[in-house]
Amino acid sequence: MSDFALRDLPDAPLERDQLRIRNRWLSVDPYMRGRMNDAKSYTASFQLDQPMTGGAIGEVVESRMDGFAPGDLILHMGGWRDGGVIGLDMSPFKLPAEALAAGMPPQTFLHNMGLTGGTAWIGLLRIAAAKPGDTVFVSAAAGAVGSAVVQIAKAREMTVIGAAGGAEKCAWVRELGADAAVDYKARPVLDGLAAALHTLGKPGIDVYFDNVGGDHLDAAFATANDFARFAICGMIDVYNDGHPQQMNYLVRAIPARIRMEGFIYTDQFFDCMEEFYADMAGLIASGAVTMRETVHDGLEAAPDAFLGLFSGANIGKMLVRL
Amino acid sequence: MSDFALRDLPDAPLERDQLRIRNRWLSVDPYMRGRMNDAKSYTASFQLDQPMTGGAIGEVVESRMDGFAPGDLILHMGGWRDGGVIGLDMSPFKLPAEALAAGMPPQTFLHNMGLTGGTAWIGLLRIAAAKPGDTVFVSAAAGAVGSAVVQIAKAREMTVIGAAGGAEKCAWVRELGADAAVDYKARPVLDGLAAALHTLGKPGIDVYFDNVGGDHLDAAFATANDFARFAICGMIDVYNDGHPQQMNYLVRAIPARIRMEGFIYTDQFFDCMEEFYADMAGLIASGAVTMRETVHDGLEAAPDAFLGLFSGANIGKMLVRL
Repeated sequence: MSDFALRDLPDAPLERDQLRIRNRWLSVDPYMRGRMNDAKSYTASFQLDQPMTGGAIGEVVESRMDGFAPGDLILHMGGWRDGGVIGLDMSPFKLPAEALAAGMPPQTFLHNMGLTGGTAWIGLLRIAAAKPGDTVFVSAAAGAVGSAVVQIAKAREMTVIGAAGGAEKCAWVRELGADAAVDYKARPVLDGLAAALHTLGKPGIDVYFDNVGGDHLDAAFATANDFARFAICGMIDVYNDGHPQQMNYLVRAIPARIRMEGFIYTDQFFDCMEEFYADMAGLIASGAVTMRETVHDGLEAAPDAFLGLFSGANIGKMLVRL
Repeated sequence: MSDFALRDLPDAPLERDQLRIRNRWLSVDPYMRGRMNDAKSYTASFQLDQPMTGGAIGEVVESRMDGFAPGDLILHMGGWRDGGVIGLDMSPFKLPAEALAAGMPPQTFLHNMGLTGGTAWIGLLRIAAAKPGDTVFVSAAAGAVGSAVVQIAKAREMTVIGAAGGAEKCAWVRELGADAAVDYKARPVLDGLAAALHTLGKPGIDVYFDNVGGDHLDAAFATANDFARFAICGMIDVYNDGHPQQMNYLVRAIPARIRMEGFIYTDQFFDCMEEFYADMAGLIASGAVTMRETVHDGLEAAPDAFLGLFSGANIGKMLVRL
């Protein structure tokens, strides 16, 4: 906690291509941990003594940017502050008016209509090209992205097996609609996955959505049907210590013609934004995709909310309301 | 060697949809090793006490199959015998008359115009979508498939780094046109690959053509540029003993958005046959793609030729001439 400090920054005058905003909701996400290291990753490192950036929903107070007017609700990357001046480098993006008019709560754009839901939707439907009838295996299925994958896959008439750690999380995965849940803390994940496939009468998996890596990824190679597709979203198993991964079944990539692809939400989002918003809004409106929110109030609660991500304190999406 | 036996089989009468043929050339290939195990693979296992099948060039002696006449040269899967009766299950395929008329030697259809050249061409250009300007890494670059990859990539104006075992094979890889050769017997392949990239002034690889797996594949993950594509053709490193592969850099699939895809020639060939024949015939005619042949004479030499594949006895394509 002593690594965080709350600072008052002076109001800056508004220049061309800038917005003055008041933040309403802040997102705290696991990827921010990587940005706290001084090492090359796919996003730049945070700078010491500068405000942390991150996804946020704000209201425009004053605008010198084309296309934005006071009162607009925007998604932007200038999080972890009450408000202030943001420029184009914070990627301001006006929330779609139709969705708001239809009653979509604005903070939904920080989860199911944003990074987590978009990551699930893009990985499952675009990267892995999952289709009705497929058998889908998803790791970290009780997490924010994983639980969205389970629900989208069920809404699209796929058979879903989710892996999670412990009986409580596995019960939650089944509540989300998964056909089977594999408790990787109870036995080796490959044993659990093979048993689930057997019970469901399925020969193997067509799609794997990876949030974990390691033995989960190896179990996917072991059980892949011909022409299986793996969307590699995360490998939380190796993020902290970077130990080597022991792969026994990687060689099945050839006889089973497996395609494995790493992806990042922001590469793909703008290409499929309209289709994603329309499809996901429908899934949320019908109740097929839901999200539990864990809400902390006030900017001073942000470090607690963030650190809670790593101690398992959240169920569903962790948010800070201002 | 005691696992092989030469047998005389009686001449069978010719039925409808059968050809009587005399074989001219037999191919021996590494994939046949997998078929000697009693385990599920992408091709059926060989049956004990039955002739081994495999790619061959034969001349039709007698035909009861539409579209084939005595004297036709055909490619078929009824190898490892002097001749005999073959049916549709041996996939008889008439060699293209234009290519033969232009002077293409028939055995070329067992390597550069067939399985090995086709595997190289499909893996490099279709699976990995390699394009001019790309930096390509290929393992087993002195082998039949690998040497075709090197030459096709050079003809398409790519930068090519080939890995091979020993100074002699590395010299041969450079003679084929590779910009650098990595001797994996002299030092860890990742060290050699990183040094080659540094010398060539390249930040990383865009394409990896895998024939080996293991430390070669891991080195490719370690050095991959963003959006690199890996065509996984073989993992000869693990075929014989199936030991686990220790992967230190697999996690780079995500930040570098790597796509890795296993493939098999026969899945792809019929979709691109005309384009492949036209393109490859041009590359061969211009001298851009060549093939050393290691030729053994007589059916009784086939087991020796085959076993030589696994002891590094061949340079280029191993053939048996009848």
